[in-house]
Amino acid sequence: MTSALAPTVAVIGGGQLARMMAEPAAALGIPLRLLAEAPGASAAQVIPDHTVGDYTDLATLRVVTEGCEVVTFDHEHVPSDHLHALASHLAVRPGPGALLHAQDKGVMRARLAELGVPCPRNALVAGVPEVEAFARTSGGWPCVLKTTRGGYDGKGVWFVDGPADCAAAFESGGGILAEERVDFHRELAALVARSPSGQVAAWPVVASTQRNGICHEVIAPAPDLDPELAVQAQQIAMRIAGELGVTGVLAVELFETREGRVLVNELAMRPHNTGHWTQDGSVTSQFENHLRAVLDLPLGAPDARAGWTVMVNILGGARQTGHLYDGYPHAMARDPRLRVHLYGKELRPGRKVGHVNAYGDDLQDCLERARHAAAWFAGDLGEESDGG
Amino acid sequence: MTSALAPTVAVIGGGQLARMMAEPAAALGIPLRLLAEAPGASAAQVIPDHTVGDYTDLATLRVVTEGCEVVTFDHEHVPSDHLHALASHLAVRPGPGALLHAQDKGVMRARLAELGVPCPRNALVAGVPEVEAFARTSGGWPCVLKTTRGGYDGKGVWFVDGPADCAAAFESGGGILAEERVDFHRELAALVARSPSGQVAAWPVVASTQRNGICHEVIAPAPDLDPELAVQAQQIAMRIAGELGVTGVLAVELFETREGRVLVNELAMRPHNTGHWTQDGSVTSQFENHLRAVLDLPLGAPDARAGWTVMVNILGGARQTGHLYDGYPHAMARDPRLRVHLYGKELRPGRKVGHVNAYGDDLQDCLERARHAAAWFAGDLGEESDGG
Repeated sequence: MTSALAPTVAVIGGGQLARMMAEPAAALGIPLRLLAEAPGASAAQVIPDHTVGDYTDLATLRVVTEGCEVVTFDHEHVPSDHLHALASHLAVRPGPGALLHAQDKGVMRARLAELGVPCPRNALVAGVPEVEAFARTSGGWPCVLKTTRGGYDGKGVWFVDGPADCAAAFESGGGILAEERVDFHRELAALVARSPSGQVAAWPVVASTQRNGICHEVIAPAPDLDPELAVQAQQIAMRIAGELGVTGVLAVELFETREGRVLVNELAMRPHNTGHWTQDGSVTSQFENHLRAVLDLPLGAPDARAGWTVMVNILGGARQTGHLYDGYPHAMARDPRLRVHLYGKELRPGRKVGHVNAYGDDLQDCLERARHAAAWFAGDLGEESDGG
Repeated sequence: MTSALAPTVAVIGGGQLARMMAEPAAALGIPLRLLAEAPGASAAQVIPDHTVGDYTDLATLRVVTEGCEVVTFDHEHVPSDHLHALASHLAVRPGPGALLHAQDKGVMRARLAELGVPCPRNALVAGVPEVEAFARTSGGWPCVLKTTRGGYDGKGVWFVDGPADCAAAFESGGGILAEERVDFHRELAALVARSPSGQVAAWPVVASTQRNGICHEVIAPAPDLDPELAVQAQQIAMRIAGELGVTGVLAVELFETREGRVLVNELAMRPHNTGHWTQDGSVTSQFENHLRAVLDLPLGAPDARAGWTVMVNILGGARQTGHLYDGYPHAMARDPRLRVHLYGKELRPGRKVGHVNAYGDDLQDCLERARHAAAWFAGDLGEESDGG
């Protein structure tokens, strides 16, 4: 009965990204229909119109998207053939042609090379001898091996110091991409949203810090970033979005090299961890603009609302007992301006269960507040810090 | 399965206030369980764990609140006896003793008089002769008659110029309160959230404009308000919240008289239309702090995030065809900073179907943007404004 009010958006994947789309969807009066992997999945907790099923099953995808105007995604793992099949019935955004570049790193590297977008040196490799040949011509060891498909959060990535280290990568069974190990100053991310009509909104370029291959901390905007390099990073993201025909959010993770260049590391075609700061730190969040983009509505302003916004992920840590909720009273009382985003997930060591945003005019203050809160929620603070 | 992660909050009433609680509930990882009046109700569209039923039926209330830690409300119409019955099983917030003052204007006026809180002169009246006696001693005609129970949005309020006008009020069947008609400069609202532990957060005092008895426009903060009067309004709201033992949001609607006094007009014990600006204009929205308060969590900062925030309601207007969604492209393209909140309701003349917030440093700009967008959504702009 809601479909008469606004077009229904189908979302494939029940993780926290879909969950966080539900907030602006409710505000905008946009009905969502979700396909979740399991009952009680993060997004299924907050989206009434949901089905539990397998996103690799085309029949399931057809049933879920029936009557929807557009389908979009919480992740990039829906098989390409299924996306093409769905595209005959409704708008698939991002479309399969674009999404392929986020699904397959080999395809992505080849295309970016064609476009002249700066990337680390790279080559598809079929075995150890090819890695050795690559290393000889591309800066030597150590280098990086990545599965072309299915890697995320540090999984499917190997840092190898020599031929003897390469076995694990090739035993993984997929295609393998070798890349030079970039001696980077830091990691940046350029986030844009693009609509089918071609409108693009670019958020300020951020600095991100990884921990064990998982995005851990984001500072918006990236401190002391050369303005020319910031524009260059945004232009790279806009160019990729346009050339690949991306619809929705595109996150471009970049290395800022010690020589002051930017090189594209990874692409994601969905709301991204490096954009969670936008929920509280910008006029329009990545989740809202993703929905607006896939519906081909005009995009909201991506401007920052504060001098600085710091996002820190909450990962299940040392505290093995208790629930996240136990952490609320201290975190909220200590910092009444803290913005808390939790995903409805049980705490498990290393699992992303939420994030916090702290914004303000003083970067050090924002860093301290966000880091303290995230550590507190994760149980990583000792007793001596309880009153801090 | 979510109950293990955080306590479940039961919400009685499926209107837009419950719908807007769902957004911060999702962000905070707080599960909601809803009792809605009808399938497809505004809040039922966005809260998976919902039941359709009658809030005047105690058995239904018991089933819905089973296993919840706390119950709160989208409206003030749950019978007091039922609230007392529920209170033996779980926390009822606000509690029946407090809520009675938002349910019965006679009780409210008597209590505020005891507390010495400034109010318009008033008296419970049983018939026309008593209204005449009241008018003789309280400023004369015209005066205002109000049903003590059940009135809202201008319903149950009569402006009477003399004895001959009083029939409709007494035919309505309920208790009637007579009040002097205050010659006010404007209407203000003081919004606070109070937790069971006694913490109170007070948002900046706002100016509100009614149209046909319905809140139409809110400016935060109230322009040119005497700082002493602003503090006085906040103190009145905090005092009422404390003395009545309110938990959750309390909205105190006030008259600012031409002599520079404030008089309490109405109380509401739930998120309130005069607080919708907080969603985009303050650090913590009224919906988030309502949830935090009823869970006895520390409250979030109520500070403004912008120099000015203007909220304008979208009421179904002259345009009888089409859907709200038809208004999105123009409104969003014209003003990329506009914040749109729609309730998933069909357009009907005079029906509240959403609101917009515009914030910034220039009040006139915010007013123009919010008024234009609300009029556009409602279909109240002529063709000549289409491109404006």
